[in-house]
Amino acid sequence: MNKTILLDKRPIGKPQLSDFKFVSDGVDEISTGELLLKTSYVSVDPYLRGRMSDAKSYTPPFELHKPITSGIIAEVIDSKNPAFKKGDFVSGMLAWKEFQKSNGEGLLKVDASRAPLSSYLGVLGMTGLTAYLGLTEIGKPKKGETIVVSGAAGAVGSIVGQIGKIFGCRVVGIAGSDEKVAMLKSKFGYDEAINYNTAKNMASAIKEAAPNGVDVYFDNVGGPISDAVLFNINQFARLIICGAISVYNSTELPKSISVQPFLIKNSALMQGFIVFNYAEKYPEAIKQLSIWLAEGKLTYSETIVEGFDAIPQAFLDLFEGKNSGKMLIKI
Amino acid sequence: MNKTILLDKRPIGKPQLSDFKFVSDGVDEISTGELLLKTSYVSVDPYLRGRMSDAKSYTPPFELHKPITSGIIAEVIDSKNPAFKKGDFVSGMLAWKEFQKSNGEGLLKVDASRAPLSSYLGVLGMTGLTAYLGLTEIGKPKKGETIVVSGAAGAVGSIVGQIGKIFGCRVVGIAGSDEKVAMLKSKFGYDEAINYNTAKNMASAIKEAAPNGVDVYFDNVGGPISDAVLFNINQFARLIICGAISVYNSTELPKSISVQPFLIKNSALMQGFIVFNYAEKYPEAIKQLSIWLAEGKLTYSETIVEGFDAIPQAFLDLFEGKNSGKMLIKI
Repeated sequence: MNKTILLDKRPIGKPQLSDFKFVSDGVDEISTGELLLKTSYVSVDPYLRGRMSDAKSYTPPFELHKPITSGIIAEVIDSKNPAFKKGDFVSGMLAWKEFQKSNGEGLLKVDASRAPLSSYLGVLGMTGLTAYLGLTEIGKPKKGETIVVSGAAGAVGSIVGQIGKIFGCRVVGIAGSDEKVAMLKSKFGYDEAINYNTAKNMASAIKEAAPNGVDVYFDNVGGPISDAVLFNINQFARLIICGAISVYNSTELPKSISVQPFLIKNSALMQGFIVFNYAEKYPEAIKQLSIWLAEGKLTYSETIVEGFDAIPQAFLDLFEGKNSGKMLIKI
Repeated sequence: MNKTILLDKRPIGKPQLSDFKFVSDGVDEISTGELLLKTSYVSVDPYLRGRMSDAKSYTPPFELHKPITSGIIAEVIDSKNPAFKKGDFVSGMLAWKEFQKSNGEGLLKVDASRAPLSSYLGVLGMTGLTAYLGLTEIGKPKKGETIVVSGAAGAVGSIVGQIGKIFGCRVVGIAGSDEKVAMLKSKFGYDEAINYNTAKNMASAIKEAAPNGVDVYFDNVGGPISDAVLFNINQFARLIICGAISVYNSTELPKSISVQPFLIKNSALMQGFIVFNYAEKYPEAIKQLSIWLAEGKLTYSETIVEGFDAIPQAFLDLFEGKNSGKMLIKI
């Protein structure tokens, strides 16, 4: 048997378990040039919510009644492709299936002896690339500047803060619980961290944590938290708009304070960041991240749930902030 | 007698005549190194509204009970400075005074025989520089792309459209009356123009006028017009936030739809533009603008009112859209 998860309905507002459907079929036969993969780890990420809608976006929407795809680590269990052999592990954008075949296109071999398999979906995968390339390509932080990160305890945010420290910046994280705030400082080296669920006035809390103002804002959440940051940006601030998890499930167009006057006053820049646009920089970025990881300068956190059947709930839990760091499903 | 206009009160919401105060004193004596100036043309510009407030901005606020300053063309009527002689005309950031002395710092000589004096406050002054440098430094339009301009009949907007055409782009203007819309097409070469006061649905009107989507948005107004543009931006769109006249007089923080999801979806960039940050590019830009002007590729429009006493009302009229092109006062 080979379980597959299909997108059964386009979510309206917050996704629900009933938007997904499990089906079972057989395991494909492979032909010359193909390989058979057994899924090891599945990554669930907030951006998948966008692809579940039918709206124009940077990646085409998922098709209804077809398997959902995301970043996956899989084991090659059979191969008729000379580039891969049985026992290899690969990462790629693959379907939410227990077993699937592939012609090898877009797959990257990963070395389980060099770093834990799951890290290739995290710090050495899209997550780490997003943190590193968003920060360096748009944020361009300079030593001594202040970086504020929203969703700081998330997969990307927890890496952004550490890279900011490597660059010699003051880093301030925003997260949604006291536990996360404590971890940002103790585990990820954040200089200051703010719990947005208990802060009385976010704009003042940010001002206190970033007394020299905000030079770089790495935005994973959007909404009122990002509004509060605007009051604290410095001249020539760079705002990396990497995610907007706070509004992904909105059924109405979310409203915020108008950003334009803040951008004019401060000659500031806001730019939407999608890691896929920077593919030519991946090798250099992964090399740098691997060095830092080996040197012990980067740590990461994962929330790993077990079992193929747990994938949809793990995805839903992202929107409740139940993960700390990268949310993965181990099959 | 030498009239001066002081900022008497910080405007709350829309500026009023009572925020300004006329005083009279004598004409200054000049010492060695100084020159005496007689004001010829005064430029009034929306950005001055920002300096009348007490808020942090890119230029310090005007001081209360002190003269307001703006771009001015003046005649040298006496000089004890070897760099200037009687009869020269200069442009600079000067006080709203009929006569004033200067040590020459920050003054630029302008050649009345090469172009009309007033053009040095307009197409060959800050206005033209704002249009050219905003478009080239942030917008970076490529041949065949679509540029949408709000406040298109204003001083800056009317020049942006023409430069867009020189660059081989489709240009779409947004303005507030049928007269302005007609003029955008007949005089300034806009391919299409939209009257935001009569359009039933701005997002659809923009879609119709820009069927290939919006690659560059030159934003002079902010507010709901800019919201409507967001629905039509293309991947990698560049949004030049040059002005936000629609919200300058707001007493509450203006709200808009959240821009972040649009920026992410389209990997788009929004950047606040202040011409003063690009001073090192002025000579090159003025050279280019002068060439186009001499070749007849640039035309401009001015609304000139007469008399020193008319300055405050002319400034207020900017917020009613009473000007077409550059608003100037001839003394």
